[in-house]
Amino acid sequence: MTVSYNLDVSSVSSFNSLRLLFRWRGSIWKSVLGELAIFAVAYAVVAHAYHNYMVPNNFGASHFEAFAHQCGQLMNTIPLTFMLAFFVSIIVERWRTTFNNMGWSENVALLTNTTIVNDSADAAIMRRSIVRYIVLAQILTFRDVSMRVRRRFPNLDSITKAGFLTLSEAEHLTEIELVYNKYWVPINWAMNIAQRALRKGYINAPPTLNILLTEIKSFRTNLATVCNFDWVPVPIAYPQVVFLAVRVYFLLCLITRQYFPPKGDSVEIASMIALPMMTMFEYIFLVGWMKVAESLLNPLGEDDDDFELNFLIDKNIFTGMAIVAEHDVVPLLSKDRFSDP
Amino acid sequence: MTVSYNLDVSSVSSFNSLRLLFRWRGSIWKSVLGELAIFAVAYAVVAHAYHNYMVPNNFGASHFEAFAHQCGQLMNTIPLTFMLAFFVSIIVERWRTTFNNMGWSENVALLTNTTIVNDSADAAIMRRSIVRYIVLAQILTFRDVSMRVRRRFPNLDSITKAGFLTLSEAEHLTEIELVYNKYWVPINWAMNIAQRALRKGYINAPPTLNILLTEIKSFRTNLATVCNFDWVPVPIAYPQVVFLAVRVYFLLCLITRQYFPPKGDSVEIASMIALPMMTMFEYIFLVGWMKVAESLLNPLGEDDDDFELNFLIDKNIFTGMAIVAEHDVVPLLSKDRFSDP
Amino acid sequence: MTVSYNLDVSSVSSFNSLRLLFRWRGSIWKSVLGELAIFAVAYAVVAHAYHNYMVPNNFGASHFEAFAHQCGQLMNTIPLTFMLAFFVSIIVERWRTTFNNMGWSENVALLTNTTIVNDSADAAIMRRSIVRYIVLAQILTFRDVSMRVRRRFPNLDSITKAGFLTLSEAEHLTEIELVYNKYWVPINWAMNIAQRALRKGYINAPPTLNILLTEIKSFRTNLATVCNFDWVPVPIAYPQVVFLAVRVYFLLCLITRQYFPPKGDSVEIASMIALPMMTMFEYIFLVGWMKVAESLLNPLGEDDDDFELNFLIDKNIFTGMAIVAEHDVVPLLSKDRFSDP
Amino acid sequence: MTVSYNLDVSSVSSFNSLRLLFRWRGSIWKSVLGELAIFAVAYAVVAHAYHNYMVPNNFGASHFEAFAHQCGQLMNTIPLTFMLAFFVSIIVERWRTTFNNMGWSENVALLTNTTIVNDSADAAIMRRSIVRYIVLAQILTFRDVSMRVRRRFPNLDSITKAGFLTLSEAEHLTEIELVYNKYWVPINWAMNIAQRALRKGYINAPPTLNILLTEIKSFRTNLATVCNFDWVPVPIAYPQVVFLAVRVYFLLCLITRQYFPPKGDSVEIASMIALPMMTMFEYIFLVGWMKVAESLLNPLGEDDDDFELNFLIDKNIFTGMAIVAEHDVVPLLSKDRFSDP
Amino acid sequence: MTVSYNLDVSSVSSFNSLRLLFRWRGSIWKSVLGELAIFAVAYAVVAHAYHNYMVPNNFGASHFEAFAHQCGQLMNTIPLTFMLAFFVSIIVERWRTTFNNMGWSENVALLTNTTIVNDSADAAIMRRSIVRYIVLAQILTFRDVSMRVRRRFPNLDSITKAGFLTLSEAEHLTEIELVYNKYWVPINWAMNIAQRALRKGYINAPPTLNILLTEIKSFRTNLATVCNFDWVPVPIAYPQVVFLAVRVYFLLCLITRQYFPPKGDSVEIASMIALPMMTMFEYIFLVGWMKVAESLLNPLGEDDDDFELNFLIDKNIFTGMAIVAEHDVVPLLSKDRFSDP
Repeated sequence: MTVSYNLDVSSVSSFNSLRLLFRWRGSIWKSVLGELAIFAVAYAVVAHAYHNYMVPNNFGASHFEAFAHQCGQLMNTIPLTFMLAFFVSIIVERWRTTFNNMGWSENVALLTNTTIVNDSADAAIMRRSIVRYIVLAQILTFRDVSMRVRRRFPNLDSITKAGFLTLSEAEHLTEIELVYNKYWVPINWAMNIAQRALRKGYINAPPTLNILLTEIKSFRTNLATVCNFDWVPVPIAYPQVVFLAVRVYFLLCLITRQYFPPKGDSVEIASMIALPMMTMFEYIFLVGWMKVAESLLNPLGEDDDDFELNFLIDKNIFTGMAIVAEHDVVPLLSKDRFSDP
Repeated sequence: MTVSYNLDVSSVSSFNSLRLLFRWRGSIWKSVLGELAIFAVAYAVVAHAYHNYMVPNNFGASHFEAFAHQCGQLMNTIPLTFMLAFFVSIIVERWRTTFNNMGWSENVALLTNTTIVNDSADAAIMRRSIVRYIVLAQILTFRDVSMRVRRRFPNLDSITKAGFLTLSEAEHLTEIELVYNKYWVPINWAMNIAQRALRKGYINAPPTLNILLTEIKSFRTNLATVCNFDWVPVPIAYPQVVFLAVRVYFLLCLITRQYFPPKGDSVEIASMIALPMMTMFEYIFLVGWMKVAESLLNPLGEDDDDFELNFLIDKNIFTGMAIVAEHDVVPLLSKDRFSDP
Repeated sequence: MTVSYNLDVSSVSSFNSLRLLFRWRGSIWKSVLGELAIFAVAYAVVAHAYHNYMVPNNFGASHFEAFAHQCGQLMNTIPLTFMLAFFVSIIVERWRTTFNNMGWSENVALLTNTTIVNDSADAAIMRRSIVRYIVLAQILTFRDVSMRVRRRFPNLDSITKAGFLTLSEAEHLTEIELVYNKYWVPINWAMNIAQRALRKGYINAPPTLNILLTEIKSFRTNLATVCNFDWVPVPIAYPQVVFLAVRVYFLLCLITRQYFPPKGDSVEIASMIALPMMTMFEYIFLVGWMKVAESLLNPLGEDDDDFELNFLIDKNIFTGMAIVAEHDVVPLLSKDRFSDP
Repeated sequence: MTVSYNLDVSSVSSFNSLRLLFRWRGSIWKSVLGELAIFAVAYAVVAHAYHNYMVPNNFGASHFEAFAHQCGQLMNTIPLTFMLAFFVSIIVERWRTTFNNMGWSENVALLTNTTIVNDSADAAIMRRSIVRYIVLAQILTFRDVSMRVRRRFPNLDSITKAGFLTLSEAEHLTEIELVYNKYWVPINWAMNIAQRALRKGYINAPPTLNILLTEIKSFRTNLATVCNFDWVPVPIAYPQVVFLAVRVYFLLCLITRQYFPPKGDSVEIASMIALPMMTMFEYIFLVGWMKVAESLLNPLGEDDDDFELNFLIDKNIFTGMAIVAEHDVVPLLSKDRFSDP
Repeated sequence: MTVSYNLDVSSVSSFNSLRLLFRWRGSIWKSVLGELAIFAVAYAVVAHAYHNYMVPNNFGASHFEAFAHQCGQLMNTIPLTFMLAFFVSIIVERWRTTFNNMGWSENVALLTNTTIVNDSADAAIMRRSIVRYIVLAQILTFRDVSMRVRRRFPNLDSITKAGFLTLSEAEHLTEIELVYNKYWVPINWAMNIAQRALRKGYINAPPTLNILLTEIKSFRTNLATVCNFDWVPVPIAYPQVVFLAVRVYFLLCLITRQYFPPKGDSVEIASMIALPMMTMFEYIFLVGWMKVAESLLNPLGEDDDDFELNFLIDKNIFTGMAIVAEHDVVPLLSKDRFSDP
């Protein structure tokens, strides 16, 4: 489920801002803490090996120190922040476009209502079918791009059972031979219904048909955009190079951020605490940032923050049906209070 | 209320630019000073503890210094500026989109005026009702996304009392069974009225109906965008990681930015002043920047700078009503002075 | 007046690029030199005080040096460049949107010409009035957002005198009771004229009316955008934090960028020149950049580079009138030379 | 073929994120490893020359060290990360626009179906021909911008053989004398067919023709965008300066990142390993990033990640044909299950 | 002429990427090498003066060194990379918008073909004239913004001679009294022709006229955008501050990047080479980047990479004429091979 936190930020107060930090669902805590634990253990293991084996036994300690020192000096040549910052910028743009194109049924339903104007049961079923078909097209599309929707509707049977498809429609759908996706089929049905509505006189004139067709087409174009974004992701090399840089950076930190007491000195406990502490803060911030990128990369996935496509499908069908059920309903118009200002 | 300052920047003069800095409402001063005071006190407490207890009693002072030194060296690994800068960029984009989609009634009212062309009282009430319904849809939407509007209209009763809804309409609205939001209901009414206007002959032809429907639909789409932005915010992990970085950074500053006199030397008073002073400047700039991000994050909230939705509702209803009151009004056309240039 | 320099950059030559640097109108020189002089004087005063009073009299010189040193070390914690760079990016986007929405009358005038097709004087006055009304709406809008236009048209009288408004129109305008802005009134008139043109048969069919209404509506939407941008500026805290950072930075420079000769050494004259010189370069670049931000922040203001709204109003009315004066004018069509390629 | 990896990032888990790193097709590994090997060998050769010839023979070793030291100190003046980051941002925008404008046939086919409404074989051939002609226009366009499509369709003959063009059409196409591209010819045919469909009464009214023409025009505009992007790339100097900077940087690294043992000391093996290791990491990240830029620069090229235009052509023709084959097909409409919620 | 290099980057290979670097036309080499030579000479002169006059004669050498040292330390306060990077980002956006709005005649020509449907010579001349008039409007516009087009068409006579304008049209054009640009005149003619086509029955219905008018209007809006971008450039202070920073930076480099041998040491030849070499690399990258910005700043100028407006004018007229010559041409429709999949 999408994680909403708008109330937490409804005003800029210090308290609100702190409350935001301690949310769990969809948080960096949830995504980072597990890996942080692994990182901390690995750090401790290396520290233990160095302080308790290498130094006392004089077993490669100086090599290790020289290695760590040399690496540490060149670590800032890894342009981690730049890569993350710009990568997230690009990913956010995609995320936003995907979101804007998920497809909402209200506009189609409202226009169906005001274009197919007839009180017959026939016209009513036409209106309902158009709504059902566009949501069906959405389900067919989402099954290809989202595991969650795929799990809910593993096959046409499950869609039929859920009432989005009749048996004969399912049959027709399977009969069409095409190796490419077929989510245009219900869209075609919806448009053809609109055409027939014109011929039957439910739609009063061709221009009226046009705005209905345009709206259905626009719904389909949205679905196509989601499909295409799934087909052509950001070139894989880009997330690879960014995520690799983060991984390598913190792998190197296991070595370079160890505490090396000055020659002859005893271990300074404060430094020994400060070093891993700071490194873990850095880990939280940078890996947390990377996790943001990862979760944005596939907004149709299964993270806490990913778009709730199943919820959207339900909302679309029920709202759409509720709208067409209100066909030609207008409250008794009466003079309003704003009449004499 | 939105804070306007355009006059202050109407020309680039040094004086104007200074005047801008000392505005209070919606300013960084207002949002930062409180927390800055807390930060300053905390800094003083730590300084006091260090200089007056730890150093004289030799109680952990050297550990503290080593700890502060080590942390200080790694503090620049926190990519604070990058995170803030890029986060604000993304948030500004959302803020702008929200603003552009708040919904203004003028276009709908003007087109209602020129499409439903009839002098009867019936047609006049139709025009007024369309305006009233779209503003009603706006109120229903804004109640879900803004605490301010929710407080003004805590329930349907309050909306009825304010004159946006008649009793029978309120009844009808509650009768519709739907677990999802219902702000489409008044939009549906408005569109159905337009349809009836065509059937009654107030609208002269189907294409004329189309542009009215399209305009109402576009108003609804705006509201839907605001709704959807509220439903799916920026993934919570992103503001978390940014705000956390800022908080941790200044928490560390309490330690690392303390003044540690060189061994054996007495306290150098100038450095002792410079250090907290510079740190507080940094606090103002970075936390101030963060506050900008916070206030942009939820532009429908309750900050000084947040959008004044209640004002917009009033403006929409009164302007809309004033427009439809000017139905078919044209001044006596006469030859203009530009006729013979 | 907008400053045009396209000829200077029509080709990438070193000479052109230098010529650009030495333009005065709207230049950084014009906006920065004044403040730079003040800064230079202040710097000299501090330098004088330090070298001629504090050092010889041993009066706080070491404190001053320690203070300057400490501040100097932390000055790079002020993320000046980041703030300026990202702030300018955001401001440029607004500037561009404002520019795109200023409203040009050509499209409306051209469509008026080809939709209201009739040779009668009545139709001609209608066409002229539509052009006049949209420019009038623009004037009413611009008066609220620009001091320059406000000065040109301080009240309705001045607009009447300039010929954009007749007396009866002005009267009608004042009679409408509305606390909100009324620039929609002439738009409403223009749209109502178009409606009447249809009823009188000057416009041949409803769809033809539609494109005229749509164009007028689009002109109004542009004006509304400019209005809304004026109503809701970038949250004040954002420019404040950026401009404050710049001011504080250079205030600190007065201290930290002083020349402190090494203990016991005499004053090294070259360093004493280099330090303020470099600081002044920095001042020119950073404050110059800030001035760019300031001048972009309110593009409707009174700077050299701000949009010339009065020019635009004149251009709109005269071009619009010239267009409608060419109603139904077509040169004698003859075979062109491209006929036989 | 486009490389899809959405399943790998369907949820933010550490395992998924690692899996992503080790994909081969389209990966940074594939694009970087070859050059990295060359770089490593060159590095080894320089190291060998320095340690085994120059140092023992005292042959220019000190000069080499001084040179390396001096260069190393100024290497950070090359703003590599900035250049890469901003260049990629700009390139991504182009890449995205190209992708959005590749042209999908569904919308045209669906509208053809619902505008040209007639059961005659004549009308059916018209519908099929419109689909075929727009895909033909796409092929003609893509041949000019993509080597892959050019190889598949080296000449008009090959297009004729593939069935997209009849012999008489090919003849007609070659007869048109025009030095500029001719991909508008089939678009013109498609539009003329639509016109004739109106005259034959297959299209019921002019407004219906309009939406079909608009859709075909919009398909053509997409193709034109792709063409224009090919005609005017990002100014060559921009990729040149960025790629040159990367090349020069790593050329310098061959010298500056050599291990120079402190005077008199023997070689410290750990440092000797750490230096090239870190440099190679840097190479992978920066050159990998550059490769991302290169592969985005021409998305119609022949890289793993480039758009599969041949696939798109096939999808367009078969889906389009499948759509028009479903002309006026509507399943038997029946009451749906959502009827009584 | 625009420089195309897409083939060079059709796949990401090391060889391709190198080939790109050594292109000459429009390259950084072409734009930078000249200035680089001047810079190198200036550097050599300063070096010569220092090493051969100042040092041997002890004439101000120590002052020079102190000055260079002091400046060198503060040179990184000039935020060169930030300024360039962000400035280029903004300029690229403008460049792109200009490119998208240059105006292509295909859409107008294609729609003219399918809206003005009549086989008479009269209708044919109308179609041809519409195409000619929009290209004429483009020429009139481009003359105001591009020196190249101005040189090709220095006056109305030259346009008449080129066949874009008849004598009577030229006369009419000059007769219109207007101090503002008049490129709307041919657009008005084109629109009026369309109107007459409707009245003569060549256009079948008002909605059909509408899409033609809309397309012509859209062409004009493109031209207006190009005009407006020329009228209001990016505020001059922005390029000034950026270009000045680059110039000052490299002026300072002449001093700060000189080789100063350690006291008492002899000149180390390797350092003496490394310093200017690195500085020249920096010069190439930064000034090269600046040249990119300069060439993008006025894309209608006369650089290698600037848009070829004269080519576009020719393409527009010949393609447009070729399109309208194919009026109502449809190949013999026959069954296609995709019929039985």
